[in-house]
Amino acid sequence: MFVPGFGEASPESKAAKNMQDFFTYVAVKIVLAQLESYNPEGYEELMDFVSKNSLNDGDKFCSGLMRESPRHRGLALRILEVRSAYIKRDFEWDNLQKLAFKMVDESNTKLMREYVLETSHMENGE
Amino acid sequence: MFVPGFGEASPESKAAKNMQDFFTYVAVKIVLAQLESYNPEGYEELMDFVSKNSLNDGDKFCSGLMRESPRHRGLALRILEVRSAYIKRDFEWDNLQKLAFKMVDESNTKLMREYVLETSHMENGE
Repeated sequence: MFVPGFGEASPESKAAKNMQDFFTYVAVKIVLAQLESYNPEGYEELMDFVSKNSLNDGDKFCSGLMRESPRHRGLALRILEVRSAYIKRDFEWDNLQKLAFKMVDESNTKLMREYVLETSHMENGE
Repeated sequence: MFVPGFGEASPESKAAKNMQDFFTYVAVKIVLAQLESYNPEGYEELMDFVSKNSLNDGDKFCSGLMRESPRHRGLALRILEVRSAYIKRDFEWDNLQKLAFKMVDESNTKLMREYVLETSHMENGE
């Protein structure tokens, strides 16, 4: 479906790009949890890098991490691996869709309900 | 799959919440395009509201729009309707997944390739 205001990109590809940044964030969390238990030094190094570099742009984050030191480079490669494996094997795409449907219905109802309640109170107060 | 750092929420529900904000943005674009052709006054009003209120939090945006004036309220209801219809009928969920897989593979390759190229140049320059 054509949606105005997206230029060349479709909403689907824009959403996929957003999700990629999100998956990089998830991969960093997973790698940190793994490091914490068996490689405390790597954990400290990655935590330190995360505290100084934004994860908003996942690719920029990984690109920076690769160039920090040979040890950081190893961590970056691990993050790339994990994000690829995570989206292909672990992330529940069907569940995402189901949750999104549910969430939008609930939010729509909530927004209307709150407004109706608010105006009822106003009328009672008058 | 358990992912650390998400508290009570799963990555799927976090992603669904992000997507809801994105779908609200898409719905606003669709409604604006519809208004532009048959209701220039409504178009101006919505454009004006968009320029003054962030769309980062879709529900907050709609909540504010509902309370702006009775005419804005009509626009808000239209946006709620459109975002619900859009995610259920028009948004291509399968395509999102396909694009996300493709994008992460391409990005991973690109990041590694760029790094390899960069270090090759450095070695050639030495």
